[in-house]
Amino acid sequence: MKMREVFALNRRAALAALAVLALSVAPISATAQTGLAADPLPSWNDGPAKNAIIDLVKLTTDSASPDFVAPEARIATFDQDGTTWVEQPVYTQVVYCLERVPAVVEARPELRDVEPFRTVLSGDREAIAKLSLKDLEAIAMATLSGMDVDAFRADVVKWIGTAKHPRWDRLYTDLTYQPMLEVMRYLRANGYKTYIVTGGGQDFVRAYAQRVYGIPPDQVVGSVGGVKYGYDKDGKPILTKEPKLLLNDNNAGKPEAIHMEIGARPIIAFGNSTGDRQMLEYTTAGSGARLGLLVLHDDAAREYAYGPAQGLPESWVGPFTQELYDEAAKQGWIVIRMKTDWKKIFAFE
Amino acid sequence: MKMREVFALNRRAALAALAVLALSVAPISATAQTGLAADPLPSWNDGPAKNAIIDLVKLTTDSASPDFVAPEARIATFDQDGTTWVEQPVYTQVVYCLERVPAVVEARPELRDVEPFRTVLSGDREAIAKLSLKDLEAIAMATLSGMDVDAFRADVVKWIGTAKHPRWDRLYTDLTYQPMLEVMRYLRANGYKTYIVTGGGQDFVRAYAQRVYGIPPDQVVGSVGGVKYGYDKDGKPILTKEPKLLLNDNNAGKPEAIHMEIGARPIIAFGNSTGDRQMLEYTTAGSGARLGLLVLHDDAAREYAYGPAQGLPESWVGPFTQELYDEAAKQGWIVIRMKTDWKKIFAFE
Repeated sequence: MKMREVFALNRRAALAALAVLALSVAPISATAQTGLAADPLPSWNDGPAKNAIIDLVKLTTDSASPDFVAPEARIATFDQDGTTWVEQPVYTQVVYCLERVPAVVEARPELRDVEPFRTVLSGDREAIAKLSLKDLEAIAMATLSGMDVDAFRADVVKWIGTAKHPRWDRLYTDLTYQPMLEVMRYLRANGYKTYIVTGGGQDFVRAYAQRVYGIPPDQVVGSVGGVKYGYDKDGKPILTKEPKLLLNDNNAGKPEAIHMEIGARPIIAFGNSTGDRQMLEYTTAGSGARLGLLVLHDDAAREYAYGPAQGLPESWVGPFTQELYDEAAKQGWIVIRMKTDWKKIFAFE
Repeated sequence: MKMREVFALNRRAALAALAVLALSVAPISATAQTGLAADPLPSWNDGPAKNAIIDLVKLTTDSASPDFVAPEARIATFDQDGTTWVEQPVYTQVVYCLERVPAVVEARPELRDVEPFRTVLSGDREAIAKLSLKDLEAIAMATLSGMDVDAFRADVVKWIGTAKHPRWDRLYTDLTYQPMLEVMRYLRANGYKTYIVTGGGQDFVRAYAQRVYGIPPDQVVGSVGGVKYGYDKDGKPILTKEPKLLLNDNNAGKPEAIHMEIGARPIIAFGNSTGDRQMLEYTTAGSGARLGLLVLHDDAAREYAYGPAQGLPESWVGPFTQELYDEAAKQGWIVIRMKTDWKKIFAFE
């Protein structure tokens, strides 16, 4: 599937590099919970995944159920890239970082002739695709730090309001999965608090999460970069983003970040890659009814196909490995098959 | 005021030492919002503090007001020690750490004859009161780490359910300030999200915040210790508390932690010490109506008196300095005077 467009990255490691962040003094709009029909998940086909989600909600919200969970403990966590929106051919935040390079070089001209900035500025797509993980880390650090958190947020809001995905020529935020938005609304309508738990930068995702997912800034957990409190030339307090990774919200970092920022074990968790394994483990090891789910990308026609047994070239370090697939079976995690479980993938279809 | 009971600590630094934490899979109860009389703040005397709080709420919740704030952006932050409960003669968490020393030494007998553990075990009150900051840090690290986060939480829940304050012979949790509990309920009834932002350990406070303040774990921001994801001997996932301080939630650390865990600038913030100065600065530097308030302890008869101009000995490094008092006047922060602003301090009065 347009594999030439795929950056040759180890995607888990790449995400880790993209974690330096910004403040959201977000003008946050009300969570839309209207329009729920009798079927709370209309974009889902009947099947084991849809049934498992509905059963869990019933079990945990019926006060007569032995698995009843008090409303305050109803925690649902969602990975983002590949779980709630498209992550192919490259993470949206990587695109943002690459597109920010000219502005960074304008402010810091000494970077113009330094790699990897020179390559990015050249516009040579083949060369850019070959950038190493270390190069991408350098780009992430340079493009995601040095500014006031409010300025960063404003820049992301502006960028994400116009940047488009090359395949669909649509805003990245239009490429959220309609079935997952329905699950979020369904869970919230049943007293669950929904959280994004992403390897992406926390401040990046916070800039649009309320609008796109109905999730406020404090319910976005991501990779966390340092911020430094200080004062601008007029003595006004500012928080400046530092090129320092405090928390890598991938793999074991996910349950660690959940503990740090949420402080309670999820009842239900959604992921799509090896980076989500520990979050699902931690979730489903809790007492009472728990559920872990993994989105399998097996629909090249409507989206992409890169899960196990998709016959992909080895150069693509797949996020959903055969090992993870086997682990899901062993642990009782539900595999969501896009091709058969999702009637509709995008709202615009 | 029983100054001999006061530990000779630099209290800000001491709090910094007390930051290694635990998970709350809290059985969290519903927030009590009942019992609001026509006067939303019945334990407050009429005066500038009460008026300022009520005016801010009106300004930010009236949709016709130019200072209207969308419900999702209504963020209120409260320091804990000395702001929402008694911090004299010594922080509750310091008492917890000292009382945990015997259990730690039982598990690690090699500490028995090592300072400062030997002094704590001796029970010699004079000697304990003279422990240095470094000693207290060592005690905090030893007593707040090494265990599973669930086990830590259970231990705090058990301890806080029985430990009593020597002056009143009442549970520490009974020594929360009734006027501040009323403010929290009043703000929540007006669509505000209330957060604890404490220099104390995040996991410690999370263990009782829902019950005591009606504040869920994810709305408790505190000093953050590392946790490590791993597996117990049966292969069950566990998060273990590490003797490592990730975030010192004091001074500049407060706005930094607010950014990290909340992601939005507060509309209103309450503190009582120099450790809260930056949180108030950051809050009140925001656009639109904002409010910063500082609790002044000037009531030796009903609680304690240790603010500016209380004639305290120099050995007490006061948390509310003359400099902070002057800064409050300059910045327009409201000083809450316990003696005159609070009709009632504790619910049991």
